[in-house]
Amino acid sequence: MPRASTRQQIIDAGLAELHARGYAACSVEDITRAAGVPKGSFYNHFASKEKFAVEAERRYFQVSGWPASFEEKSAVARLRAGFEALYAGAQDRSFSRGCMWGNLANEVADHSDAIRGELAEGLDAWSAIVTELVAAAQRNREISAVGDPAQLGRFIVNAWEGALTRSRVVRNGQPMDDFFRMVFGLLLA
Amino acid sequence: MPRASTRQQIIDAGLAELHARGYAACSVEDITRAAGVPKGSFYNHFASKEKFAVEAERRYFQVSGWPASFEEKSAVARLRAGFEALYAGAQDRSFSRGCMWGNLANEVADHSDAIRGELAEGLDAWSAIVTELVAAAQRNREISAVGDPAQLGRFIVNAWEGALTRSRVVRNGQPMDDFFRMVFGLLLA
Repeated sequence: MPRASTRQQIIDAGLAELHARGYAACSVEDITRAAGVPKGSFYNHFASKEKFAVEAERRYFQVSGWPASFEEKSAVARLRAGFEALYAGAQDRSFSRGCMWGNLANEVADHSDAIRGELAEGLDAWSAIVTELVAAAQRNREISAVGDPAQLGRFIVNAWEGALTRSRVVRNGQPMDDFFRMVFGLLLA
Repeated sequence: MPRASTRQQIIDAGLAELHARGYAACSVEDITRAAGVPKGSFYNHFASKEKFAVEAERRYFQVSGWPASFEEKSAVARLRAGFEALYAGAQDRSFSRGCMWGNLANEVADHSDAIRGELAEGLDAWSAIVTELVAAAQRNREISAVGDPAQLGRFIVNAWEGALTRSRVVRNGQPMDDFFRMVFGLLLA
């Protein structure tokens, strides 16, 4: 594999810092130290920490654990596999850190339209993936659940974000267990 | 009405600052300025900003807009009225600020066990209220929905928190509209 470009290196290492520390507490120096590049090189690639954060947000879904492709055949099984992968990631972090998108939404969305706009796009794109799987599950009669797939898609994504936040508070997987039982056991039954 | 104690005055005015600014960005001076009391008096009542935040968290539900009592007769109508009151509050703030509990969960829960512990208690107490209303709706056969009321209660609270975060990103009520349709139209139908 070719060596990642310096820019990509800064995004990937800096994203982990941004996720762990939060926006205000994550300095450009934290980012360049984690990336192993000179501090000055940051500004060759990003005009500001805000611009960097927008790139990190854009990259986040690809490193979130959500599968790029699925082995499962049924749409419901694929949906479940997607959330199970996110659950495994949260468990690996002992339920700390939460979702970087959710963190930025709560910390910065009121103050930066650039960061807020990218969050809206990211969450829309993820909701569209969930919506498509819900619609396929309905089409294939895997589920008898009625309900508009677009509303279900957004609702399920938002419910996951809320569950992840609660798991950070209780430091265990109960909120996600509730999510799986309610979403797959009732809502999409 | 007797004049609120200085301590209560600091909690109520400071809570609004903490909600609007977030934990790190809210200084003791911001709190005392909002409360109209000398900066020094803060430490007569609270050992630290962290201790103040725990008191503010404890107070938050009472000022969140969730009704202390309900005029509605049916349990489902009461539940709906509770979330509608929270929706109205979010609308009044143009969907900014989010939920103070959710903000603290994402900003501080990883770093302060005192703040995290109080969040867990607050969210548990609110979930218990929702659970009781869901259980009453099931008992009274207002809804045919099956499902463990405690799991439903926690899930609904977490889904609300996620919807509120998303509404901060999109700056409109769509995530809450989705919440009402999915929770009252499908999950508790």
